[in-house]
Amino acid sequence: MHRILLLSFLCLLFHYSQCYEWKTFFFKQQVDHFSFANQDTYPQRYLVNSTYWKRGGGPIFFYTGNEGDIEWFAQNTGFMWDIAEEFGAMLVFAEHRYYGQSLPYGNKSYSDAKYLGYLTSEQALADFAELVAYIKSTNSGAVDSPVIAFGGSYGGMLSAWMRIKYPHIITGSIAASAPILQFTGLTPCDAFNRVVTADFASASTECSETIRKSWKSLSSILSQDDGKEWLRTHWNLCVPLNGTDDVVNLKDWLTNVWTNLAMVNYPYAANFLAPLPAYPVKAVCEHLTNSSLDDHSLLDELFKGLSVYANFTGQTKCLDVSQQADQSLGDMGWDFQACTEMVMPMCGDGINDMFEAQPWNIEKYSERCLKKWKVNPRPLMAPLIYGGKNISSSSNIVFSNGLLDPWSTGGVTKSLSDSIVAIIIPEGAHHLDLRAADPNDPPSVVKAREIEKQFIGKWISSVKKDKKETLKSIFVG
Amino acid sequence: MHRILLLSFLCLLFHYSQCYEWKTFFFKQQVDHFSFANQDTYPQRYLVNSTYWKRGGGPIFFYTGNEGDIEWFAQNTGFMWDIAEEFGAMLVFAEHRYYGQSLPYGNKSYSDAKYLGYLTSEQALADFAELVAYIKSTNSGAVDSPVIAFGGSYGGMLSAWMRIKYPHIITGSIAASAPILQFTGLTPCDAFNRVVTADFASASTECSETIRKSWKSLSSILSQDDGKEWLRTHWNLCVPLNGTDDVVNLKDWLTNVWTNLAMVNYPYAANFLAPLPAYPVKAVCEHLTNSSLDDHSLLDELFKGLSVYANFTGQTKCLDVSQQADQSLGDMGWDFQACTEMVMPMCGDGINDMFEAQPWNIEKYSERCLKKWKVNPRPLMAPLIYGGKNISSSSNIVFSNGLLDPWSTGGVTKSLSDSIVAIIIPEGAHHLDLRAADPNDPPSVVKAREIEKQFIGKWISSVKKDKKETLKSIFVG
Repeated sequence: MHRILLLSFLCLLFHYSQCYEWKTFFFKQQVDHFSFANQDTYPQRYLVNSTYWKRGGGPIFFYTGNEGDIEWFAQNTGFMWDIAEEFGAMLVFAEHRYYGQSLPYGNKSYSDAKYLGYLTSEQALADFAELVAYIKSTNSGAVDSPVIAFGGSYGGMLSAWMRIKYPHIITGSIAASAPILQFTGLTPCDAFNRVVTADFASASTECSETIRKSWKSLSSILSQDDGKEWLRTHWNLCVPLNGTDDVVNLKDWLTNVWTNLAMVNYPYAANFLAPLPAYPVKAVCEHLTNSSLDDHSLLDELFKGLSVYANFTGQTKCLDVSQQADQSLGDMGWDFQACTEMVMPMCGDGINDMFEAQPWNIEKYSERCLKKWKVNPRPLMAPLIYGGKNISSSSNIVFSNGLLDPWSTGGVTKSLSDSIVAIIIPEGAHHLDLRAADPNDPPSVVKAREIEKQFIGKWISSVKKDKKETLKSIFVG
Repeated sequence: MHRILLLSFLCLLFHYSQCYEWKTFFFKQQVDHFSFANQDTYPQRYLVNSTYWKRGGGPIFFYTGNEGDIEWFAQNTGFMWDIAEEFGAMLVFAEHRYYGQSLPYGNKSYSDAKYLGYLTSEQALADFAELVAYIKSTNSGAVDSPVIAFGGSYGGMLSAWMRIKYPHIITGSIAASAPILQFTGLTPCDAFNRVVTADFASASTECSETIRKSWKSLSSILSQDDGKEWLRTHWNLCVPLNGTDDVVNLKDWLTNVWTNLAMVNYPYAANFLAPLPAYPVKAVCEHLTNSSLDDHSLLDELFKGLSVYANFTGQTKCLDVSQQADQSLGDMGWDFQACTEMVMPMCGDGINDMFEAQPWNIEKYSERCLKKWKVNPRPLMAPLIYGGKNISSSSNIVFSNGLLDPWSTGGVTKSLSDSIVAIIIPEGAHHLDLRAADPNDPPSVVKAREIEKQFIGKWISSVKKDKKETLKSIFVG
């Protein structure tokens, strides 16, 4: 009773369009699945809803949690909830190690590479494999249940990789907006920023031009003695800017804001990354209409646009440029992953995109990582382990990509076989298809979900078919 | 010149039927491929012969080294050398970490679980993956070379698992006598000892009966005051027997001798595990003709049989029951692996097999492992990671099994698809097909090798074909 009240309260508080219920469990996992030098264990959190599960073979829909609190992903993956009844599916949402409440070393988890070093995708996948095996062995009637993996973004990469690496455990995968090709040598590093720019330019060229010019305006004003104070008052900054580091941070924050807006450019008001109106890029661009203004006026205009992201609720007291997005996301953890195996080269020239020119420089990147985390990045590790572009010997994966989503540039956008299929959603932002159905959904995402359901149905049937086959050996006597 | 002289000398010394030449290299590997808590590196040894390699696409034949000195496996895998010219193949033999000269922590490698803990198959496979990528990127004309994995026994398990886990790196695998099903719940634990027994019984029932009775004779004699001394003189033991531990060790040693004889029951004189005559089981059994003898006479008879294994060369000064087999094998390393993930349940009742009754007792087994290596076995780890019996979504693997080989009981002996194929060699002992062609080979192994060559050819051609395919995405706009 209390739980339900609490949930309803959370629903109101965070403006979730849907509210779901689950039971929370913890499962004892090895910290290191692949070696025996460290035999520690930790409790991994996972959420289960069995309301619609058909005991005795009904499928398990398994969300491969990504870099954040698993409850947040459970709330934002309405597609799984929407189709559970139709498939008689059990829903499981597994939290990724080192995020949310699944901290292998508690408060110490992030204190040193000797604790944090086990934060890798390989270990996370092995967690998922162990967890599925445990759930199947402890839920009567689940032993023959097909398991469909779902995930968006990094979670989509994990769901694809689960099928690639553990096809005996995962029957098929819906990998939404999964940039498994956003690695060294696989995708041009400038593609991402071009898509972000295109999103703003398609609202209006004045909009993307205003943003393009804003970097210079910022540099110009902030180089003046009273410029920092001017910006503090005009942008209502929570903390005044001091040294050059603060200026760099501010620009990084802005870069992230524009990128996040492109990612969550959903057709209805939503609260993913930040509370936002429908089509937030358009809403921002309604304020950025004149790129010919002088520096001060241009930044005043920019602030109005920014406020759509930073203060849509009207409740924000001041602009906090230290906070990137929803706190459910584990920025620290992701920074460590980006500094180890999730090295995703990004660059831009400021001409074909609206950002400041930034070359991709692995040496500088590595220096920062070594300084911050005491680790050396291994940029070729993920493609080596997971196959990069060469995954056609796998099967049963749907890669969906929205063309509004900058991450689509690192996604699989061409089918590789009859059963490794790419779906392109022209009006889709970042894993829109994984979200709950909404009256404002464009027809393309409705259709994409239909196709995904067809594949899920096919994969489930194929498991039953497979069981009948028997083959003989070649006897050379 | 010196190298060639040295090799020729080694050839003579070790009675290799064939002598091969290679260049030796070392490649810097991560000790831990899957985490960043330990960022140490170590030099992995590998051997290369490019005599017949067709630069510009000729295949790479890659031996996935198992638990021993890689030079020994290179010498004993004549099949690869025999077919290199026909396929224009580069030969690579990669040493398994913690064996031979590939010791991650030098002399300390075996001193503590904190150093030894990285001795796992998962880490070894990642070593191989890194090494293949390195070889392809540093040998001009190798970038498009198909890579065929070869391996026998545990090496065969590794070659199968390489294709299963790294299909983007390994085009196909010849997995000879690879007991990938010799794990908990997948194979009855008594099957292995039954096959060993059948091998001896098929030479003569008196032979297997003599061995079956010998355990009781040993117990009876060794329980007497002068029994240990009697055995020392009659069996010419190097070290006298003392406590019960020594008796247990002696029986373990004998168990291993009979097992090894069944494994290497080759149709010609060979030196694998030990220098032996052709069909060594038959040669042993020629001495074990009367199981009705009294205890002393029966053990005298047994010693004659034993000497075929322990002193075929006539050079052995005394019987050393502390040495199991060829010192090229890393017994210590394998014991650690058996105590961690390579838990292969074995048992017998002494009725359906010729050994002392021994139940499978995982608790006792784990106790020993914890005491000896400070590790807790994870018996379900390998099946979870590699799929156990559920590997049919993989492809391009030939599993060959000899029916004389006790390890065939844990092998894949039924084809799982058109491209995961089981070959049964009725007259084959342990990975006979991987050995060099010999005039005394039975026709079945000759045929098996032909079939393996056909599959290798097919896999190589399929790589070229794959490149032509292009598919489109599903555009839902």
